[in-house]
Amino acid sequence: MTAPLPSQKAMVPFVSVENMMRLVHHLGIERVLAELTDLIEEDFGRWESFDKTPRVASHSRDGVIELMPTSDGTIYGFKYVNGHPKNTAEGLQTVTAFGLLADVATGYPVLLTEMTLLTALRTAATSAMAARHLAPKGGKVMAMIGNGAQAEFQALAMKAVCGIDTVRLYDIDPRATQKTARNLEGSGLTVIPCTSSQQAIEGAAIVTTCTADKQFATILTDNMVGPGIHINAIGGDCPGKTELHKDILLRADCFVEYPPQTWIEGEIQQMDRSYPITELWQVVTGQVPGRRDERQITLFDSVGFAIEDFSALRYLRNQIVGTDFYQELDMIADPDDPRDLFGMLQRAR
Amino acid sequence: MTAPLPSQKAMVPFVSVENMMRLVHHLGIERVLAELTDLIEEDFGRWESFDKTPRVASHSRDGVIELMPTSDGTIYGFKYVNGHPKNTAEGLQTVTAFGLLADVATGYPVLLTEMTLLTALRTAATSAMAARHLAPKGGKVMAMIGNGAQAEFQALAMKAVCGIDTVRLYDIDPRATQKTARNLEGSGLTVIPCTSSQQAIEGAAIVTTCTADKQFATILTDNMVGPGIHINAIGGDCPGKTELHKDILLRADCFVEYPPQTWIEGEIQQMDRSYPITELWQVVTGQVPGRRDERQITLFDSVGFAIEDFSALRYLRNQIVGTDFYQELDMIADPDDPRDLFGMLQRAR
Repeated sequence: MTAPLPSQKAMVPFVSVENMMRLVHHLGIERVLAELTDLIEEDFGRWESFDKTPRVASHSRDGVIELMPTSDGTIYGFKYVNGHPKNTAEGLQTVTAFGLLADVATGYPVLLTEMTLLTALRTAATSAMAARHLAPKGGKVMAMIGNGAQAEFQALAMKAVCGIDTVRLYDIDPRATQKTARNLEGSGLTVIPCTSSQQAIEGAAIVTTCTADKQFATILTDNMVGPGIHINAIGGDCPGKTELHKDILLRADCFVEYPPQTWIEGEIQQMDRSYPITELWQVVTGQVPGRRDERQITLFDSVGFAIEDFSALRYLRNQIVGTDFYQELDMIADPDDPRDLFGMLQRAR
Repeated sequence: MTAPLPSQKAMVPFVSVENMMRLVHHLGIERVLAELTDLIEEDFGRWESFDKTPRVASHSRDGVIELMPTSDGTIYGFKYVNGHPKNTAEGLQTVTAFGLLADVATGYPVLLTEMTLLTALRTAATSAMAARHLAPKGGKVMAMIGNGAQAEFQALAMKAVCGIDTVRLYDIDPRATQKTARNLEGSGLTVIPCTSSQQAIEGAAIVTTCTADKQFATILTDNMVGPGIHINAIGGDCPGKTELHKDILLRADCFVEYPPQTWIEGEIQQMDRSYPITELWQVVTGQVPGRRDERQITLFDSVGFAIEDFSALRYLRNQIVGTDFYQELDMIADPDDPRDLFGMLQRAR
């Protein structure tokens, strides 16, 4: 007896790395970043309708593996993501990820996808969303300190969403800066490689820090930070890993994604709980102001939250409908009679 | 420029439903169940080396979606599983699942697989492992109350591991019993369909309850349970869902997987915390006895724990090496220079 073909319910659309790259080129990366920014903002705008939980982390000597689930009551999403700073030395990615959406009513998965690229895109889009509310109006220059895997995505998102036209690059490894400068050729951005953090931040309206070492580091010191700038702090994102001197936090107004997670993973792990923070979703919904004046120092203490991944997964699901940017995976056993799982197995013999 | 082929590190072996069925038939289902039982027992024997956490559940009106992670320090595994009792009425599975193994040292996934079938196999193997320590020696008859998707797997595991030769079936829906009886034809088991639970348990050494309603039910009452039997209670596995009358628990010695989870999900959610329970791993390691005498009533209050899935994933990973029972999924973005994720994207244009 021939095995019957799997039913449509058994098939889960899967977006491979290759298809993700094809999709991004098909749509155009700046369009993807801008649309993702809007969708993340939409989901931050309905923050209270999400089931939220700090990520579920499994720590080991060399890194961490995390599961980041959330649900809006209709769709459930989660991301698997690792963070292994030592990987780079072995030619591996520090961060790899994949994600899934499922239908809350049935529990059946409806999308599986690579999320290494998608996480890079959503992290940049989240930064752009925060900067749209917090960066000084009309600022055209961003300093980018740390020129690793996230750098180009950040630069293009700030261009597409906030209108920056110049990016000033610095990394302790000049080859990383060269790599980023080369990749941004033809992007329309003026790219200025710098030889120090101090030089990089000259004239910058936005300072993005995105370094990867797992340690308490001081990428920015207090005397480097002038009034009126927006700091977009990406790299401090796990316990024991920060980038900013504490004194900067004391002068800045600090905005976060999900406090129970940011207190553990963000720059504010250096502060005690009396330190005032504002939740970004409250800025998005207009409950509290974003930037209030020209001299204010704003800080987005970004660690990455499950709702951003949810938005990215939702975006992807919408974009692949009717395209060939996915394949069908036979991942769900779906016998004709749901009680007859064994019969399905038997008939496949 | 052509996109370079993904590197081997980017590829994750994936076992589809079809390949899982092929593999089970290739090895033989009783062999799979017996080997799985041994591997689960091996992992229960090193219980203390695992990173354990209760499953991460997202509850909704119609069901639950859960993530079940664990790690032994070298390998990390997790399962995605839903539980939607209403699904059956819509022709869908109550439980669907998939799972993943990853390398703790790098965080890179090393196996993705369907787990609806694999969960059915590991649940039956776990029951068989418990019965091997708890059921009366030489018992040849099992009563199977609830003849749904798990029934045949339970019967064959008890045959392969504990040597039962007869299974007495009962379900409130006679069609479910007919389905199970038909599927077990030619299995070597004597199958006796019964018209009541009372009739089914006559002469049984092992009574397995596996019903699916999400409610406090009484599948077995106290007067039905004679001395010396082993109760294998599978169906009470989430808050508000139990199968046994409380009085049975008071007469039985109760064995559980992971107490923090079983207190919430198992039969013992009916009891207060002074109720004595024994952890099954302590029986496996010989720290405490299993069955002590012929008149003892033993109860395995099974809810399913992440380590059992870990064992099943580990088993599968070993079995597919060098076979064609899997395909490679391009799931991990793996640029030549790990800091050059954007360059990889760009070169794929």
